[in-house]
Amino acid sequence: MRTTFQIIVFAISLVFSFPSQAQTTDAIFPKGELSTTKNHTGDIWLSELNVGDSTFDPSIALATYGPGAKLDWHIHPGGQVLLITEGTGYYQERGKPGRIVHKGDVVKCAPGVEHWHGATPGTSFAYIAVTPTQKGKTIWLEPVSDKDYKSVK
Amino acid sequence: MRTTFQIIVFAISLVFSFPSQAQTTDAIFPKGELSTTKNHTGDIWLSELNVGDSTFDPSIALATYGPGAKLDWHIHPGGQVLLITEGTGYYQERGKPGRIVHKGDVVKCAPGVEHWHGATPGTSFAYIAVTPTQKGKTIWLEPVSDKDYKSVK
Repeated sequence: MRTTFQIIVFAISLVFSFPSQAQTTDAIFPKGELSTTKNHTGDIWLSELNVGDSTFDPSIALATYGPGAKLDWHIHPGGQVLLITEGTGYYQERGKPGRIVHKGDVVKCAPGVEHWHGATPGTSFAYIAVTPTQKGKTIWLEPVSDKDYKSVK
Repeated sequence: MRTTFQIIVFAISLVFSFPSQAQTTDAIFPKGELSTTKNHTGDIWLSELNVGDSTFDPSIALATYGPGAKLDWHIHPGGQVLLITEGTGYYQERGKPGRIVHKGDVVKCAPGVEHWHGATPGTSFAYIAVTPTQKGKTIWLEPVSDKDYKSVK
């Protein structure tokens, strides 16, 4: 009986542990390559799903952040929509309090607005970014200060 | 022993059955509402993730098809990218053979091209569609014939 009970516990634990691994978009799209650019801190993987051009504007990419990873402050001249597909992260626009964003949220960042986004210290974070490119490329600014990062609640 | 064996089989079946339910974007984004428009056959659920406007062009929506559901032939004046997030479907452009598309595929449909897409007869199908709207709304044409639908291999 004890063995049977252990098997039941094991079966139940498998069922409850599986979704946290399965419900990620890297199970749908490739996680891509680890970014080597200097406009972020921490590990960020990028997977290009569509290259924007003059025929079909928006660039579409999956970005996956390790815990604590964050982009520097930046501006999208054509704006950006983030479809958050995994984990929990921070999003802040200049002059406003940062906010916590979750899997399933859709974040719209207007053209020209200075902002940053990143993972929380303890969780990974992923989104599909849809970014019109014909109004100009991303303009990178300074890194996010520890004070700003820690201020998000 | 027989009971133990049955529990093991049950546990294994749970593990293998779970991903097919969990690895869907309706676990990430709401499945939305059942479409009541007349430009498709079968059940299609639509979940609007972003409304395109003059400030940020592309409309972004999750579409989920029941088995056998398909859109009529249509045209996107600004083109469309489909990020396939679940299942298996068909995609055909006018004058070309239809093709089978799978979860993880990215399908780019150029502006002005007549085409249709839908689920296979036996599988559900879902994608996130990114559709620029400033060049005009979708132009709907005739339903897909049984001959065209059955021709996809």
